[in-house]
Parts: sequence; C-alpha cells; structure tokens
Amino acid sequence: MRVKIHGKVKNFRTVWYENGTVNLIDQRKLPYKFEIYRTRDFRDTASAIGNMIVRGAPAIGATAAFGMAQAAFRFKGNDMEKFKEYMKNAADLFRKTRPTAHDLFYAINLMDEIIEESNSVGEAKYLLKKKSQEYADKSAEMCKRIGKIGEKLISNNDRILTHCNAGALGCVDYGTALSVIRFARYNNKDIFVFVDETRPRCQGSKLTAWELEQEGIRYRIIADNAAGYYMQNSEIDLVIVGADRIAINGDIANKIGTYEKAVLAKENSIPFYVAAP
Amino acid sequence: MRVKIHGKVKNFRTVWYENGTVNLIDQRKLPYKFEIYRTRDFRDTASAIGNMIVRGAPAIGATAAFGMAQAAFRFKGNDMEKFKEYMKNAADLFRKTRPTAHDLFYAINLMDEIIEESNSVGEAKYLLKKKSQEYADKSAEMCKRIGKIGEKLISNNDRILTHCNAGALGCVDYGTALSVIRFARYNNKDIFVFVDETRPRCQGSKLTAWELEQEGIRYRIIADNAAGYYMQNSEIDLVIVGADRIAINGDIANKIGTYEKAVLAKENSIPFYVAAP
Repeated sequence: MRVKIHGKVKNFRTVWYENGTVNLIDQRKLPYKFEIYRTRDFRDTASAIGNMIVRGAPAIGATAAFGMAQAAFRFKGNDMEKFKEYMKNAADLFRKTRPTAHDLFYAINLMDEIIEESNSVGEAKYLLKKKSQEYADKSAEMCKRIGKIGEKLISNNDRILTHCNAGALGCVDYGTALSVIRFARYNNKDIFVFVDETRPRCQGSKLTAWELEQEGIRYRIIADNAAGYYMQNSEIDLVIVGADRIAINGDIANKIGTYEKAVLAKENSIPFYVAAP
Repeated sequence: MRVKIHGKVKNFRTVWYENGTVNLIDQRKLPYKFEIYRTRDFRDTASAIGNMIVRGAPAIGATAAFGMAQAAFRFKGNDMEKFKEYMKNAADLFRKTRPTAHDLFYAINLMDEIIEESNSVGEAKYLLKKKSQEYADKSAEMCKRIGKIGEKLISNNDRILTHCNAGALGCVDYGTALSVIRFARYNNKDIFVFVDETRPRCQGSKLTAWELEQEGIRYRIIADNAAGYYMQNSEIDLVIVGADRIAINGDIANKIGTYEKAVLAKENSIPFYVAAP
C-alpha cells in the first residue's frame, strides 16, 4: 500500500519477514502515528496478534505463518522428534491468540503439514520460510485480483459506502473492499467514499480513512447511523464491504452493522457487494 | 423525574423558575455529575440554551418562556412602549439560540402575544410569570399523558429499543418515549431497554442511560450499529422514539439514525412507535 512519509510515497505491506524479524505496521497507533513494530521472537509475534497490533483475517494468517518460520529458526539441533514437539507448542501458542477468523488456523495447519512432510529439521526450516513467504504473496495476489475484477462495478463519479476496514491493513496488501476502491482510483475513476465510523473500535474512522488519505481518494467519515440518511437522499450509489467468513450457502459474517447497511441498501434499491477472497 | 442523590430519591424537573432564577439540570455534565445550573440574568439563560446546557425541544421551549419572564422583571419603570421595545430585543436574543426545534419559537411567540395583550408593564410582568409557569406545567402534563396512554403498548417482559434521548431531560418532566417506558415500569411491568449510543453526541449513552439508571429500569447501551443484530435475533419486541417535529401528513423528523431503525424494524416485523406531544 502507498504510505506518505515526510512527503514521499513508499510502498508497504502490512506484514513482512526479513532476516528473522517479523515487521508489522502498528495498527494501534494509526491514524496518529505510522510505526513499524518489529519482533525477533515468535512469542512476541504471537503477542502482537493478541494485542491487536495486527488486525484483519488475512493479515493475521500471514503473521502466524511468518511466526511459525521464525519459531523454526530458533530451534537448535537436528532431532526431528524434539523439533516437532517444539513446533507443536509454537502452533498451540499461535492458535490461542485470536478466536475469530479462520485464516489464522488455516495458516497454522498449512505450516503443520509442511513439518510433517519434511525429512529433516533443515528441510523444515527451509520449507517453512519459503512457504510462509508464498502464503503472504498469494494472499496479496488474491486481493490484487479482487481489486482488478471488482473495480468494474464502480463507475466514474460513484459515491461508495464502506463499513469497517476491509483494506490493505487487514490483509497483506491491497485489501478486499478497499482493493476494489483502490483499483477504481488507479483506473482514474473519480470516486467519493463514505466511511462508516464503525463503533465501538472505530476501524472505519481510524484505519479506512487513513488508507484513503494515503491514496488521495476523497472521503468523509460519517456516524454509523447516518448511512441510511444518505441512501434515502440518493447520495450513495453502491455499498461495498469485506467479510470475516463466507458460508457455503453464500451467507457472510462481517463486522456488527453490516447487516443494517445491507437492509438499508435493499430498502433503497442500492447495490450491495461483498468483496472477499 | 427521580434522581438519586447520596442514596436518597428526589424529584426534579429539567427546568424550573424560582424567585427570578432559572434553574437547569446541567446536561453537559451528565452522567458523571448531577449539577444545577442557575441563571439570574435572561442573557445567561439564552446562553444556556445555545451552549447545550439544556437540550430537547420541549425543555428549550420552557426555558425560553421562563427566560422571557426573567427579562420582564429586570425592566425598570412603567413606560409600555419602552418595555415592548426591550422585550422585543430579549425575544430576538432567544430566537437566535438554537435553530432546530419549533418549541422555542412557539414559546416566544406565546410570550409576545401576552405582552401585546397587556395594558401595563405590571400586568405584563404578572402574566409572563404566570403563563411561563403554565407553559412548563402543561408541557409536563402532556408528557405524563403520553406515558399513561402509551404504556399500554408495552407488555410484561418486553425488550424495548430506543434511540437518542426522548426523556425527562429533553422535556420539562417525564419525557416522550421515556415517559411511556417510565409508566410501564410504574405499572410494575418487568422491562429491558436497549439504549442506542447515539453518535456523535451520545445522548443515548449519556442521558437516556442515566435516566433509566435513576428509575431502576434494566438497560444496556449498545453500539448504534448493533440494533439490527438484536432485531434479527428476535431480541427486541418494540422500538419507541421521540420526535423533533411531526408534519401534517404524519411524517416525523428525529435524530439521525431514526430512519435506519425504522427500516430495520419493518424488515424484521417489529412494531415501531413515535411518542410525541
């Protein structure tokens, strides 16, 4: 994602791994401060998930994958049985950090399988590092594709409502609903975004608004209660949100209030989209 | 309204007039502190309306009426023409305090008429004091009747949603939507109230919750976005709100978000009531 630092635009991912360090954009400090939180110990990486430094299902999944690689490299020796026991404890630690999104468990299970398939500690270390990077890259790539495909839903001059943060910060990069909005902007569509405050934690006013600011996309933060008013007055052309989870029948689970906006969109014949990998 | 002070229950009105002083429950300090704001000068009374010390259409109307009486008693002499000119300026000052509710203008016009009909300054002073008290008493009486009639809508064990503050604090006493809830409680109905936080000024979490606390009525403050969730899960039996204004065709204007709750109630086949004088 684009981040303006001292007037210069730089590209960042929400989470990345480098020389044994997991780097995270510290989401507790936004929008007031842009800071990178660095952990050199997998136990600190697990704490970072628990402490809301990183948020959003895809970003948490990638952080856990990197954390597992980080744990592996801390192991001394070549005893595969001891290594497996040690990594089982690490996996358990990560599984306890956050109960909501499935991505966390999916990423840890994937790392577990890699350990099972490895013939030596060295091979496991190599594969965990490689696969965790692939996991993060694939996650970013999926979000990029969501944006490229989804942006066709947006017309020039559209006024879009979004709820909570379905942005790059919640993913490894690009975001889901915000990826669609980003790519509409990259394709030079002039758009305006109504950003629900999203009480009680205000991910909309704190995170989504910050991301839009970085991208130079016009927006306004509104009280959660105000969306219906704008819909009724024909000031919203479409609604787009992310999802914590999608059921096989197509039902979605997302931040409290998503259902309200969906009902209001239906009442006012406004298209309502869910963008998710 | 009942207020618990140092463990003792006392009755208060939101605004009352006594020996030239207008007394107001200071609504900026609630729910943290219960304080009476006293003004001895009508200009301070006007400022109190402008500064949100008193809120809610009926309470503002009564405050302006008392303020006009207060202004009259400050006038020295018997020159009726000078008195009228002086009172016209006072009325203009009150008209500029708050643009939203009609009650303010209605109350001032009523006081203007009394001055027009008076034959002397003394008579005008007497009548302004008498009529402003009658105005406040009538306002309280109307709210009492709303409660007595409306409470029949509520059954034992009902779970009620309310939005913003339509309580005694917004009126002279009892409230509108909260009067209905109060009388249901006085008639020993066991009820539970979901209180919308009501962003951005939080009249729900700060004022409505405080009033329910004083009355010993069970309640929970919820994020504005959560009402739909509770409706969908059959945890709300009815919705009741107040109104800033009612149009001749029955349309109502009320705090931002009221429309959202009405649409959600319709979607979930939940009765939605507006209580207003």
